[in-house]
Amino acid sequence: MDCSMLWQRKSGLDHNGMTSESAFIALMRQIATGAAARGLQDDAAVFAVGGETLIVTHDMMVQGVHWLYDANPADVAWKLVAVNLSDLAAKGARPIGVLLGYMLGDDEWDRAFAAGLANALAAHDVPLLGGDTTGAGGHTETRSIGMTALGVATCDPVPSRNGAQVGDTLYVTGALGDAKAGFDLAVRGERNPVCLVNAFNRPIPLLVKGQSLAPVVNAMMDISDGLLLDASRMAAASGLRVEIDLASVPLSLDYIALHHDNRESRMIAVSWGDDYQLLFAAPANSILPVPAFAVGQFSQGAGLALTENGTPVDLPSTLGFEHGQ
Amino acid sequence: MDCSMLWQRKSGLDHNGMTSESAFIALMRQIATGAAARGLQDDAAVFAVGGETLIVTHDMMVQGVHWLYDANPADVAWKLVAVNLSDLAAKGARPIGVLLGYMLGDDEWDRAFAAGLANALAAHDVPLLGGDTTGAGGHTETRSIGMTALGVATCDPVPSRNGAQVGDTLYVTGALGDAKAGFDLAVRGERNPVCLVNAFNRPIPLLVKGQSLAPVVNAMMDISDGLLLDASRMAAASGLRVEIDLASVPLSLDYIALHHDNRESRMIAVSWGDDYQLLFAAPANSILPVPAFAVGQFSQGAGLALTENGTPVDLPSTLGFEHGQ
Repeated sequence: MDCSMLWQRKSGLDHNGMTSESAFIALMRQIATGAAARGLQDDAAVFAVGGETLIVTHDMMVQGVHWLYDANPADVAWKLVAVNLSDLAAKGARPIGVLLGYMLGDDEWDRAFAAGLANALAAHDVPLLGGDTTGAGGHTETRSIGMTALGVATCDPVPSRNGAQVGDTLYVTGALGDAKAGFDLAVRGERNPVCLVNAFNRPIPLLVKGQSLAPVVNAMMDISDGLLLDASRMAAASGLRVEIDLASVPLSLDYIALHHDNRESRMIAVSWGDDYQLLFAAPANSILPVPAFAVGQFSQGAGLALTENGTPVDLPSTLGFEHGQ
Repeated sequence: MDCSMLWQRKSGLDHNGMTSESAFIALMRQIATGAAARGLQDDAAVFAVGGETLIVTHDMMVQGVHWLYDANPADVAWKLVAVNLSDLAAKGARPIGVLLGYMLGDDEWDRAFAAGLANALAAHDVPLLGGDTTGAGGHTETRSIGMTALGVATCDPVPSRNGAQVGDTLYVTGALGDAKAGFDLAVRGERNPVCLVNAFNRPIPLLVKGQSLAPVVNAMMDISDGLLLDASRMAAASGLRVEIDLASVPLSLDYIALHHDNRESRMIAVSWGDDYQLLFAAPANSILPVPAFAVGQFSQGAGLALTENGTPVDLPSTLGFEHGQ
C-alpha cells in the first residue's frame, strides 16, 4: 500500500455529541479527497517516505470523557501511550516515537502524569520526540491530552481494514470484555480483580503480535470500539458480509467469574470497546504465528450477522461505542 | 542533522500556569534523554526515515486561551494550520500533511471550522491525513484542538536553533508587532485595519521563504513568542550572546499609524509573539535569497542585550510570552 489515511473514533466513558461527531467526520472526509485518502477509514495514516513506509496516528483523551475524574494520572498516561501504540500494532509497525499535546492541570497531577508517561514510554521502549503544552485558561473541567505516534512499517503491504476476502476467518487475539468489567469496577472504586481493572486502565498494545501477524493477514485493526462495531467496519471496508459466532468469543476466567458465561455477558463483551485486542482476517487454514481465536467468517454480501452455535441472534441496539454509550 | 527534537511553547492570549508549564517541560526533558533529543529545544522533531529526513511538529490551541470566545471558527482553523506549518517553514521543510485532534463544539461552530480547515489546507496545498474527534463531556469552556504537521526536509543539514556562529547577523523576514496590534483590535471587536487583524487571525506560514533560506542560514526558527524571547533562545541554544538593535526592527506602516514609532511601540513589537516571521542567523555578508532585515548580531558570551542606535536599552521585565502575559 502506498498511502492510506484514517479517521479514528475512539471509545470513551461518555459519548456526548455522537451525531455531531459523525457529521464532523463526514466533513473531514470531504476535505481528505486525495486518491490515497481511502475515505479516512483506517487506523492510521500510511505513506511512503524515503523508501520506508511511515505510519502516523493521533488520539485525544478528555478528562471526564476518556478518564474518570479521580483516575490515577499515571494510568491516564499509560492509556494514552497504549491506545496510540495499539494503532501502530494494527499496522504491524515498529514505533519511532511520540509527540504529546498536554493541557496543564494542577502540579501534583502533572507530575504524576509525567512519571507515568516516562514509565509507559520506557515499558514500550518508545522515545518522546516533542510536543506542546498549554494552560487551560482557568477551566480545568475538560482538560484534554493528545498524542501522535509515528512508526515504520515492517511489512509490505501494510495491513488495512479493507483487505478481507470471501471465505476468510475473522480472528481476535485474546479475551474481550475485560476492559468493560474493569471500567465498572473502577467506577465503583474497586481495585480487584486487578487483571480486569488493569485491562481498562493499562491496556497492552500488541506491537509484537501485530508485527508477527502483518505478513499473514488480509485485513487487520485493533478493537477500540467493540468487536461487533469494529468487525462491521472491517466488513464494510472490504465490501463483504461478516458473521460472528457469539459462542466462539474468548472470555477470560476473571470476566466469567464476575459476569458468568451467558448470552447477556457475551453480548456485553462484544459490544464494548477498550480491549485493544487485534482483529484480523486470514484464510481459514492459515498457520498463524501467534495464538488467536476464530470468531467469525467473511462472505459475499454486506453487513454483520450474529449467531450462537449456528442459531441466529438479534444484534444489540448499539453495536459499540459509536452510538452514545 | 540526523535527529533533533522539540518542546514547543506557543504564544497565547493568556498564560495561566506558566510556572507549572516550565516545571512540566523540565519533566519532559528528563524523559527525552536520548542523545538525539537535543533537550526538546527545537521547533520540530527531525529524524531520518529511509533516505529522507522527516520533520514533525504538534501544536495545541485552547478556546479562551489561544482564541477568543467569539472568534470566527474559520480563523481558528486557519491559525491552527498556519502555526503548525510555520514550524515546518523554520526547518525549510516541504509539508506532507496534517493530522487533526478535534474536540467537538456545537454543530454550527464545527461546520464553520471544517470549512475553514478545508480552505486553509487548500491554500497551502497540504492534505489532511487523519486524526481523532472527541466530545467535550458537556464542558465546552475549554475546547481544545491539536494538530500534528509532517514534512520532509529540503536541505541537509536541517536548520536548527543552535547553529548561530560568532559574528553572524540576526535577521528577521518581516515586520513585527502586527499580530499584537491585530489582537488588540480583535479584543475590541474591530475589523480594521484588516492587515493587522489578519496578522493575528490569519498568519502566513513562510514555507517558501523557509525552503529558500534553509541552505544559507546557520540557525533558524519562527517567531511565535516574540523576537526578544525567541532570539534569546537561539543564542542560548548556540552558546552565544546576541545583541538586538531596537531601531533596526522592521515595523509596518499600519502598525506605526496606530502605535507611532517610538521606543514603547518598538518594545511592544519585540516582546509579543504570534507574528510567525522567520528569525535566522547568517554570516554578515551573506547574499540572501529573500528580503530580510538585520536586527542583531551574535558574539562570544551569553544572554541577550538590547540597544537603540548603539545606546544600551534596559530589557523589558518580560521578554515574551513565556512569563505570563
